[in-house]
Amino acid sequence: MKKVAVVGVSGYTGLELLKILINHSGFELTYIANSEGNISIEELHPSLEKVISMDVQKADPKEIAKVSEICFLALPHKTSMAFAKELIALGVKVVDLSADYRLELNTYEEFYCPHEDKENLSKAVYGLPEFYKEQIKNTDLVANPGCYPTASLLAVLPFIKYFDERSNLFIDAKSGVSGAGKKLSETTHFVTVNDNIFTYNPMKHRHGPEIKEKIKLLENKELNISFVPHLLPVTRGMLVSVYGTLNDETIDAKALLKEFYKESTFVRIKDKPVDIKSTAGTNFCDIFVEQNGSALFISSSIDNLLRGASSQAVVNANLMCGYEEDHGINKIAYIP
Amino acid sequence: MKKVAVVGVSGYTGLELLKILINHSGFELTYIANSEGNISIEELHPSLEKVISMDVQKADPKEIAKVSEICFLALPHKTSMAFAKELIALGVKVVDLSADYRLELNTYEEFYCPHEDKENLSKAVYGLPEFYKEQIKNTDLVANPGCYPTASLLAVLPFIKYFDERSNLFIDAKSGVSGAGKKLSETTHFVTVNDNIFTYNPMKHRHGPEIKEKIKLLENKELNISFVPHLLPVTRGMLVSVYGTLNDETIDAKALLKEFYKESTFVRIKDKPVDIKSTAGTNFCDIFVEQNGSALFISSSIDNLLRGASSQAVVNANLMCGYEEDHGINKIAYIP
Amino acid sequence: MKKVAVVGVSGYTGLELLKILINHSGFELTYIANSEGNISIEELHPSLEKVISMDVQKADPKEIAKVSEICFLALPHKTSMAFAKELIALGVKVVDLSADYRLELNTYEEFYCPHEDKENLSKAVYGLPEFYKEQIKNTDLVANPGCYPTASLLAVLPFIKYFDERSNLFIDAKSGVSGAGKKLSETTHFVTVNDNIFTYNPMKHRHGPEIKEKIKLLENKELNISFVPHLLPVTRGMLVSVYGTLNDETIDAKALLKEFYKESTFVRIKDKPVDIKSTAGTNFCDIFVEQNGSALFISSSIDNLLRGASSQAVVNANLMCGYEEDHGINKIAYIP
Amino acid sequence: MKKVAVVGVSGYTGLELLKILINHSGFELTYIANSEGNISIEELHPSLEKVISMDVQKADPKEIAKVSEICFLALPHKTSMAFAKELIALGVKVVDLSADYRLELNTYEEFYCPHEDKENLSKAVYGLPEFYKEQIKNTDLVANPGCYPTASLLAVLPFIKYFDERSNLFIDAKSGVSGAGKKLSETTHFVTVNDNIFTYNPMKHRHGPEIKEKIKLLENKELNISFVPHLLPVTRGMLVSVYGTLNDETIDAKALLKEFYKESTFVRIKDKPVDIKSTAGTNFCDIFVEQNGSALFISSSIDNLLRGASSQAVVNANLMCGYEEDHGINKIAYIP
Repeated sequence: MKKVAVVGVSGYTGLELLKILINHSGFELTYIANSEGNISIEELHPSLEKVISMDVQKADPKEIAKVSEICFLALPHKTSMAFAKELIALGVKVVDLSADYRLELNTYEEFYCPHEDKENLSKAVYGLPEFYKEQIKNTDLVANPGCYPTASLLAVLPFIKYFDERSNLFIDAKSGVSGAGKKLSETTHFVTVNDNIFTYNPMKHRHGPEIKEKIKLLENKELNISFVPHLLPVTRGMLVSVYGTLNDETIDAKALLKEFYKESTFVRIKDKPVDIKSTAGTNFCDIFVEQNGSALFISSSIDNLLRGASSQAVVNANLMCGYEEDHGINKIAYIP
Repeated sequence: MKKVAVVGVSGYTGLELLKILINHSGFELTYIANSEGNISIEELHPSLEKVISMDVQKADPKEIAKVSEICFLALPHKTSMAFAKELIALGVKVVDLSADYRLELNTYEEFYCPHEDKENLSKAVYGLPEFYKEQIKNTDLVANPGCYPTASLLAVLPFIKYFDERSNLFIDAKSGVSGAGKKLSETTHFVTVNDNIFTYNPMKHRHGPEIKEKIKLLENKELNISFVPHLLPVTRGMLVSVYGTLNDETIDAKALLKEFYKESTFVRIKDKPVDIKSTAGTNFCDIFVEQNGSALFISSSIDNLLRGASSQAVVNANLMCGYEEDHGINKIAYIP
Repeated sequence: MKKVAVVGVSGYTGLELLKILINHSGFELTYIANSEGNISIEELHPSLEKVISMDVQKADPKEIAKVSEICFLALPHKTSMAFAKELIALGVKVVDLSADYRLELNTYEEFYCPHEDKENLSKAVYGLPEFYKEQIKNTDLVANPGCYPTASLLAVLPFIKYFDERSNLFIDAKSGVSGAGKKLSETTHFVTVNDNIFTYNPMKHRHGPEIKEKIKLLENKELNISFVPHLLPVTRGMLVSVYGTLNDETIDAKALLKEFYKESTFVRIKDKPVDIKSTAGTNFCDIFVEQNGSALFISSSIDNLLRGASSQAVVNANLMCGYEEDHGINKIAYIP
Repeated sequence: MKKVAVVGVSGYTGLELLKILINHSGFELTYIANSEGNISIEELHPSLEKVISMDVQKADPKEIAKVSEICFLALPHKTSMAFAKELIALGVKVVDLSADYRLELNTYEEFYCPHEDKENLSKAVYGLPEFYKEQIKNTDLVANPGCYPTASLLAVLPFIKYFDERSNLFIDAKSGVSGAGKKLSETTHFVTVNDNIFTYNPMKHRHGPEIKEKIKLLENKELNISFVPHLLPVTRGMLVSVYGTLNDETIDAKALLKEFYKESTFVRIKDKPVDIKSTAGTNFCDIFVEQNGSALFISSSIDNLLRGASSQAVVNANLMCGYEEDHGINKIAYIP
């Protein structure tokens, strides 16, 4: 068993990491931390009482390096970089759930802040297993993708060669509130969200450039992406609608998708429209496609906290450690 | 006061019609009916106890004609036609909430069923006041638009001249469950819907052809419309995302919208993203627009039961009877 | 028309007051305020665009007194007292939605804080119209009841003479999140509340003493009240279950309730279980009762923001100004 | 590994049984059925695609007996009896999730229907492990308790000796909609339930007599139980409030509970109020208690589909087969 650490156990993705690692027979949880420590994990998360009993540390890379071989960082962007840099220097493998190592330098600095670890940035591997499996197996630093980019890229990458660079690609995304994190704000107040839906940062959200960049890197195409996220009155789950114009109306989109993902453990191509309850609690991405002339509609569903963050992170760790991709990964949905 | 009748008082749109007409100082409710009668309205809808006391009749056009000048039909398609035909023959003005008189004959027969009242179909006026006000004032038969078409057309019609006929127009629509009606089905079971979202009839929904036809009739353009509806885990409200490619990137979309609707009582152009709680309970349509190069995104919010059906129907009746458009129409949202 | 002011227009009860007063033909809104001013009401509450346009002032009692005869205070406890004291001294009638004038001095000081306006406290009238109508008509200061006490007292007061002072009276209450107010906290974060239910402050909530005190004052009985509130994953609405032990098993509880409230405009005794959607948006209190031997169960439903606060406040203002109790009060539910 | 069968795989509790058994290392799923067969389980439940592939049979006891040692019945009452009778005769152990074997004959026949298997009824063991562990280990037929009785009995049984037989015990229960099953009805239509809460069958629900009977059998006390269930606008989860009058005000209720359940794997006594998200997805029952003089309030939370049905059924099967109580039972909550 490999010894693992989790930093950022107060938040939702941190909790989801623990939920997976507690029962993972290939990983032993040796160190868990947040910014303050001084509490037990079962006090911090009462649902874990009688499940695990462990003290939460005040995060310290040197202490992590003493007891762990691999560390998951569930921290805000910018905060992550400081930890990752030190951990890598101490020989600890890192899976970072923030945006800090996901993008090329200029993209990162344009949409986030000045980068403080350019050396490791150049070595980081984007943690989308369906497209970077071999690189993930051979790296010490994985940059876990954003939730919206995961759902969008899995849907759209198989079709890139069929889109014109001149046409627009539209992504109408819808996410549960857990994606906004625990931080208190008017936007996440129950009374604001319940029975409501609205877009936020339309066409300006930082996941737009992430999607665009990965399409460029993987398919060498510069597409005009309009990414428009919405907040849904649900706790978890994400449904992404992709709308594009095909340059070849004769393709059989469904057959193409099924062929493309036939070896993929965690992508299911569905004959009927997908929904978010069927992927909730799992690492699956369900995809449905419909076409009408040159118009293509792809509907992609994931659990934003799992495939969009924590379970995909553990899949990446599995690969980094030579385990089977799906070792210890939950496949049983939170349904009904 | 004009005497009015409502047929179909068991369902949601029927109840919403009553809620408006009860307090409408220009209309007197003289006849209310469903398919069975034999019950009081306050038994059928317990929230109306101490608000109104009236018997529900088993719908009979001859009886309606004896006591009413104008009749609202909140019935399924096909059933409506039979009533409308007889009522018009008896001299009663009709506002029909079904699809029976909304479309041109061939479109109707392609997507619904054989039409049984072609004569009146040719005289019916599409009840979208912002575009057909004069015709509505002068007709005896208004075909109330579908909910999705109302939200979509209000958003998109101002921009039609800026879309190429060759490009695709995508409509990603999201509606509350009341739009599916009272009929029991697995799709509307609480456990299916709660915390969930999914598309249904993507690109095949009958509101697609309705939108396409009205764009053709009003703007003489044949656009490729891909209409994709989704079911939201909310009771009421509808948010429509329209994605199109402009043939002129220099237009100021927001200024254009504000100018287009500057005289419209019930359309509000917003500077920030719209949401469905702010229009719930009212006849307002709130619209927000964002552009990025040639990509145009319009977000349109209405209450599917009100602006999408019942309040728009009463606005139409107001116009047919020479009243002010907003006479007796609620403008105070169900918010928080 | 009487000129009215509303202080505290940022919050939910403040917004609900405006929603009623905007269309109230007996009241003219002359002054609206919050703690900061410097904004228009339609910017503060975007759903009010095209409904009302008015500047929000930074609350100042002297300014209020210049333009208003009656003032609604939708402020936190303690803050209210300062305003009320000055307004009364300036001759303005006050309807206070806080707890500041609801209780006897010792009860208030035990559960809230030192009272700063004992003189007016002794003159204030508890604004529960079914029990204090004549006093409300003749007072200049109404203390609007708490939401839970309103629903509980309306349910339980008709039966007090049938409860033993030695037995326990249990109140299991359930409220929508708007009752907690706009203030951000982990408890009202969407992710905490959605799909969840839990009690808070069981047996310690300050509405317990309020209920107990009013029972004592109105029926001269000292009952042991156990008041246990719960937070519901809904925006608005309140359902209260009252469980008591009758000292006379022969009473017909339903007949007693119907008789007791036969003249009450806003209390409906139902033959089937009540629900919160049927009272949402209105000033109604729906009550259902079931008995089994000596066990009595009463189910009471109100809209916590309306009958539990704002609409009851306007009813009180109606009475203070010599209007009909239900003048301008909404009776049409937010249903479906 | 013991071979197991599940009959009734279409419904929610049937699905939950499969979700547990699929990964249970002590049980091998050899036969799954509903009333029609002729479909694969992954077609019936699309979330199970890539998780399990197995045909669903049309339920036949003789076929079950050929391939299974133990059979779970997730069927409606009355239907279950016919299957159980035949299976037992064929030597198959049975865990029945219906009410058919839970009650004494007269209670069953008073509240359900004529019993068709009195012989086995007299041998059946009530499957509440905290109270019947040894009997469960030695039986071939377990009658799985109702959901409401599970949550209520776990809360109340430790205190029975402190309640007077003359006083009333009130149970105000609140359940998610999955408890009503898949059957379509107006009560479970999303529009009826969303944002709503109401009681149903107050004081008449069949779980009342079940609770009363078990208290009598286990503690030899005849208490007056008033059981009042409510439907909550959530998918899963159950919170039960128990209100009783203690005959001894000096007891320390929390200490008593902690002592009572100190050996119980699946009962957690909490210092803060319990909530339903923290037990969702698990077999845990969380209990909180508060007292005030002679008034006792107990709050008990379970997942209605799991501890209230399917996971408790598998715990019972574990005991019947000599496994550890918690073998293969999920302890990780569906939270956030």
